[in-house]
Amino acid sequence: MTVRARVTVYPRPEILDPQGKAIAGALGRLGFDRVLDVRAGKSFEIELAEGSGSVEEELGQISEKLLANTLIEDYSVELLESESA
Amino acid sequence: MTVRARVTVYPRPEILDPQGKAIAGALGRLGFDRVLDVRAGKSFEIELAEGSGSVEEELGQISEKLLANTLIEDYSVELLESESA
Repeated sequence: MTVRARVTVYPRPEILDPQGKAIAGALGRLGFDRVLDVRAGKSFEIELAEGSGSVEEELGQISEKLLANTLIEDYSVELLESESA
Repeated sequence: MTVRARVTVYPRPEILDPQGKAIAGALGRLGFDRVLDVRAGKSFEIELAEGSGSVEEELGQISEKLLANTLIEDYSVELLESESA
């Protein structure tokens, strides 16, 4: 039994996002003038073995320890699916 | 009226993902031994003004032209919400 989850990491709203701004500017120059704003972040798809503890709790620890810098980034965890092996 | 959407870009399944492998290895060394696999990708949150054409079609063009290198990456588009301004 395995669980697939996705952790998404974005710069906090009050933190400047130069990569997102650069993409929004480039899209404007390419003619995509409906684009108002872009935020650029990271996405991690994680496969876990079923275990004793809570998957959400483990993913929270993983995010705080390794995937996100919580001083400047927010993260969110989504469970995608469980699969019987 | 604005639309928020998320474009997620991952390396294609047949392409090596050294960043994901490095993260999976680091998590194992940190004691997260339930982690079987990690894929590392990018996430873009895009805000668009309501317009004449289809939002999904515009986001597909944006992804193919700027956000994803479709030779080595797959992308997916999700609509998050519409907001009346």
